Amino acid sequence: MNPKLVPLIDSLPSTVPFVGPEALERKRNGLFRARLGANENGFGPAPSVIAAIQKHAAESWKYADPENFDLKHALASHLHVAPSNIVVGEGVDTLLGLAVRQYVSEGTPVVTSLGAYPTFNFHVAGFGGRLITVPYRDDREDLSALLDAVKRENAPLVYFSNPDNPMGTWWDADDVERFIDALPPTTMLILDEAYGETAPASSKPAIDISRSNVLRMRTFSKAYGLAGMRCGYAIGAQQQITAFDKIRNHFGMNKLTQIAALAALKDQDYLRQVVGKIIAARDRISAIAEANGLKAIPSATNFVTIDCGKDGAYALSVLNRLIERDVFVRKPMAPGLDRCIRVSVGLDAELDIFEQQLPLALQAAS
Amino acid sequence: MNPKLVPLIDSLPSTVPFVGPEALERKRNGLFRARLGANENGFGPAPSVIAAIQKHAAESWKYADPENFDLKHALASHLHVAPSNIVVGEGVDTLLGLAVRQYVSEGTPVVTSLGAYPTFNFHVAGFGGRLITVPYRDDREDLSALLDAVKRENAPLVYFSNPDNPMGTWWDADDVERFIDALPPTTMLILDEAYGETAPASSKPAIDISRSNVLRMRTFSKAYGLAGMRCGYAIGAQQQITAFDKIRNHFGMNKLTQIAALAALKDQDYLRQVVGKIIAARDRISAIAEANGLKAIPSATNFVTIDCGKDGAYALSVLNRLIERDVFVRKPMAPGLDRCIRVSVGLDAELDIFEQQLPLALQAAS
Repeated sequence: MNPKLVPLIDSLPSTVPFVGPEALERKRNGLFRARLGANENGFGPAPSVIAAIQKHAAESWKYADPENFDLKHALASHLHVAPSNIVVGEGVDTLLGLAVRQYVSEGTPVVTSLGAYPTFNFHVAGFGGRLITVPYRDDREDLSALLDAVKRENAPLVYFSNPDNPMGTWWDADDVERFIDALPPTTMLILDEAYGETAPASSKPAIDISRSNVLRMRTFSKAYGLAGMRCGYAIGAQQQITAFDKIRNHFGMNKLTQIAALAALKDQDYLRQVVGKIIAARDRISAIAEANGLKAIPSATNFVTIDCGKDGAYALSVLNRLIERDVFVRKPMAPGLDRCIRVSVGLDAELDIFEQQLPLALQAAS
Repeated sequence: MNPKLVPLIDSLPSTVPFVGPEALERKRNGLFRARLGANENGFGPAPSVIAAIQKHAAESWKYADPENFDLKHALASHLHVAPSNIVVGEGVDTLLGLAVRQYVSEGTPVVTSLGAYPTFNFHVAGFGGRLITVPYRDDREDLSALLDAVKRENAPLVYFSNPDNPMGTWWDADDVERFIDALPPTTMLILDEAYGETAPASSKPAIDISRSNVLRMRTFSKAYGLAGMRCGYAIGAQQQITAFDKIRNHFGMNKLTQIAALAALKDQDYLRQVVGKIIAARDRISAIAEANGLKAIPSATNFVTIDCGKDGAYALSVLNRLIERDVFVRKPMAPGLDRCIRVSVGLDAELDIFEQQLPLALQAAS
């Protein structure tokens, strides 16, 4: 006899949201030459951020301030909200898990798009929620169908990312606001804006913290180039933000991460520069795709999703031929989206390799 | 109308396990001169660890390997177990939360000692468990009473730390092994060995991964001096370790933390040196206590708990008089333990300040 897991936990699969590039490298027994699959920012964090980490490395013996006071105040000032409208966490992944735990118990219906962020689904499954998935429409999340599903299922939680991962598409602020207006006030919207900094300003509704049914999530992992440091934050009405304190890991933040995120936020010049580089790299990936007769889907993120023009099996073959050629990319797997591969921005040298290898991969996949 | 929290979450208090020193500094409007309250290791991590963080700071744009492959393999080799017997997480706090979630749902009885680690209790409350608390006996966790409570309540989960926080006391390996042998096989023991490296070897049972009802938790936060980096690990039977993968945040680890922990594990010479310093600082804290007519409780940790010789109100007054004098310490709050204050090791300069201020604080408290 062994200790018995809670039935819900026992029933969960051992599958993981997605496999890391390091696991693929171990399996292939060789390193990738181009790391373009994880929607990281290969341009890296600002030199000022790297310097701050190095300067404070010796302070890593101290627990971080559990209130994230300095970072929360800096974010509040940057966003023109109160510190009590912000919760900081160990990446958006952690905040998604905490938000799901607040609104989901066994059998709770939760609405998302079919093929959207798998870690959100992982958390919903982990708390016993019942996922209602709405297909994309014209490669965008389908706002009106999401709304219909929320109402039909009386769902207390809906997930929508703008811009979207894995397609890179987006809605304008007006459309998002209409969606929010139409939501039942008892339905919490998680508006994932992880890629917000690389998106046009016209896609971002003004922050309205009087809305008690919207949690906006942002991150230092993408434009700020700090995926490895794990820092995200959610913005919302005070009452909803306070609920995170009931269950979050108060001493969970990394001390150097607090320092790095503060330094990153201060260096808005670097952010502007790097967003320029991301846009240029996006354009180059699109041009490479089109030079190979493929269609690049317009993107507001730090990646470009490329329509390989045939079915999912063909796109998977292209993906595998790229991986064999030391180019790490990923692909959407949901029906309708699975005809695509997804290529993250990176340094010119990495895009050179992608440019060289894509025609060979396409040839081999045919 | 607002979105409605799950009733369990709604019912939770907004209280936090404990307040950080930074919050106290903000309240006092002044910095502490001696940071001796959070059981950190003021001697800091090894120079080799600081150098590794600095060297790899620019890689912080990469997500960490979600499998923690290199660190898990290094730990496995160090501990003479298989990598599949180890799960790495963002500090023991996170692993405690995940373990509780595996075994606790609403109403589940969970046994711990009255006054033991509050973050464990926070997690138990957070998943709706019913805490059964067993008083300490002679300032040690009471193994036979813990066992009685487990059997009486048919509890699937029991927490025991060796050495103990907040008292610093410990049991010998033989006693711990007898306790494990006597536990029902359906009861999971969390054996928290956060302070294991500073304890006598005779207090640590041999690791036996054939035991499916023991999870041993260890950390890089204490002897290794990396509290701010957030890295802990659990050792157990493969089946129990695998269950963590069903719910853990696979991309939750900090990239620089993986690098720092690996470097720390490699530098066992430094660990030996720093444990020597910790023991010397412990001895000095005890001597300071005794020079002031107080009784230092023998400790196997990186702190010394000092019996102030009167009641809880008096010890609280001593604590507050120390805090007023810029000396950050904490104290146990449970009845029977609350006559004490708890002083973490630190640099000589900080213990000098403690030595100067303790007599003044005692005088002021009288």
